[in-house]
Amino acid sequence: MTSSASDHAFSGATAVHATGEGRFDVQLSPDWTIAGRPNGGYLLAILGRAVTDAAGEHRHVLAASAHYLRAPEPGPAHVEVQTLRSGRSASQHRARLVQGDLGCVEVLVTSGRLVDTRPDWSVLTPTEPAPFTRCVRIPGTGPGGFRAPIFDVVDARLDPADTGFAAGAPSGRGELRGWLELPAQENFDAVSLLYAVDAFPPATFEIAPSGWVPTLELTVYVRALPAPGPVRVHHRAQLIDGQRVDETCWIWDAAGRLVAQSTQLAGIRLA
Amino acid sequence: MTSSASDHAFSGATAVHATGEGRFDVQLSPDWTIAGRPNGGYLLAILGRAVTDAAGEHRHVLAASAHYLRAPEPGPAHVEVQTLRSGRSASQHRARLVQGDLGCVEVLVTSGRLVDTRPDWSVLTPTEPAPFTRCVRIPGTGPGGFRAPIFDVVDARLDPADTGFAAGAPSGRGELRGWLELPAQENFDAVSLLYAVDAFPPATFEIAPSGWVPTLELTVYVRALPAPGPVRVHHRAQLIDGQRVDETCWIWDAAGRLVAQSTQLAGIRLA
Repeated sequence: MTSSASDHAFSGATAVHATGEGRFDVQLSPDWTIAGRPNGGYLLAILGRAVTDAAGEHRHVLAASAHYLRAPEPGPAHVEVQTLRSGRSASQHRARLVQGDLGCVEVLVTSGRLVDTRPDWSVLTPTEPAPFTRCVRIPGTGPGGFRAPIFDVVDARLDPADTGFAAGAPSGRGELRGWLELPAQENFDAVSLLYAVDAFPPATFEIAPSGWVPTLELTVYVRALPAPGPVRVHHRAQLIDGQRVDETCWIWDAAGRLVAQSTQLAGIRLA
Repeated sequence: MTSSASDHAFSGATAVHATGEGRFDVQLSPDWTIAGRPNGGYLLAILGRAVTDAAGEHRHVLAASAHYLRAPEPGPAHVEVQTLRSGRSASQHRARLVQGDLGCVEVLVTSGRLVDTRPDWSVLTPTEPAPFTRCVRIPGTGPGGFRAPIFDVVDARLDPADTGFAAGAPSGRGELRGWLELPAQENFDAVSLLYAVDAFPPATFEIAPSGWVPTLELTVYVRALPAPGPVRVHHRAQLIDGQRVDETCWIWDAAGRLVAQSTQLAGIRLA
């Protein structure tokens, strides 16, 4: 068998197949993994796709809140979706990712319709990383042979100012800025933005070395449908306390519009 | 009948009564309301109390994500709690607030144990509102006779610099800073912090007048057990787009420690 860029397409790797009564079969791709486990944002995007497939008119995720129970393995799994309320302008849903008979990710989703508007008010200014071509692409194979196949398929690039960790000299600022582009330059949409907010490495890399930083909770708000092209990412840690860290992520589209934002709480053990 | 400060105690107003199999009877207090409807953070605290009552060793809420389906009325309701996973250091739960046979609030909770540690790293500095006695207490009866009984029982005070909206001259900054103290000076704990993050009026008051700002989603991280005394509140809007606004809230205890943080997405129609 041969492999092409389209085999790795995000839309294909997050495809869901309805089998009736709110149940969807899915295949967790070995490509979208880090150290053998699927990325948490990738899993959330699969859940979001199943929910919006079941949501009718309210086909865009507005807010999704995921709690991570256990990390599944690549391979077959299924999603169960239950609509809790169908309102006039929004609907609420509960969904879970199950592998074997074990629940792996539990999520609540409020869905609605994203329409073409312009922001009314904001205190935010778009992050301004170095230009795409001057940023440093994250490799799929890191120091010591550490394998993160996801970075072979997605083009995630860091501002050179935020790559100190790679040389053992983190900036201490606890933030990563850069660019993200899907395989085969597939454009982002309201589903893939659920992945985008969790695509970068832990922002704590720019604080201090640590072991695995497992996400406990991830909340994403999708604010607008993105313009075509790569998105800008600003991923920032605020506080490490009691072996937990919070991280905020903002995603800006090519037009400089905030299209998604997230907050997550993760476990961390500083080395 | 006479009424005393202790009748309004937060712990009493959020009491839950186990009736078996993860079900709890609750009474939604008419005191903790705005325009006749219970405050969303108050409802989340009730859910949090039921979850942690059912959670055994993992008795502190670490992360709670609530989606609001419909606003209940004061009076009897019940909470259903289901534990999804009991792990070594954390557990995950699903809970819902039901009135009659209608689901009102749906929540996912990760619980664990908050232990006495010190922060390892932070980019945050505590908000510094004017001293407690120089801040302006929010009244239970506002302009035009608008009733928010919750502000008769809780002592919520705004920095004078953030009260422009009351005179029809909002600052435009979209933030409210101040202090919060529970009735009868009851100390905050990991449950009442779930209320604290939603205690202030919408931060959008300091942008422009609007109608009702209903919360769609509210995520809270409890970061540490608070020191005794009133807490400092920093409540800030970031972006209004497509008739939705996000608001971030940070809660600092008397010792200057970040004890809780939240993000919410709410509907808004600017006047």
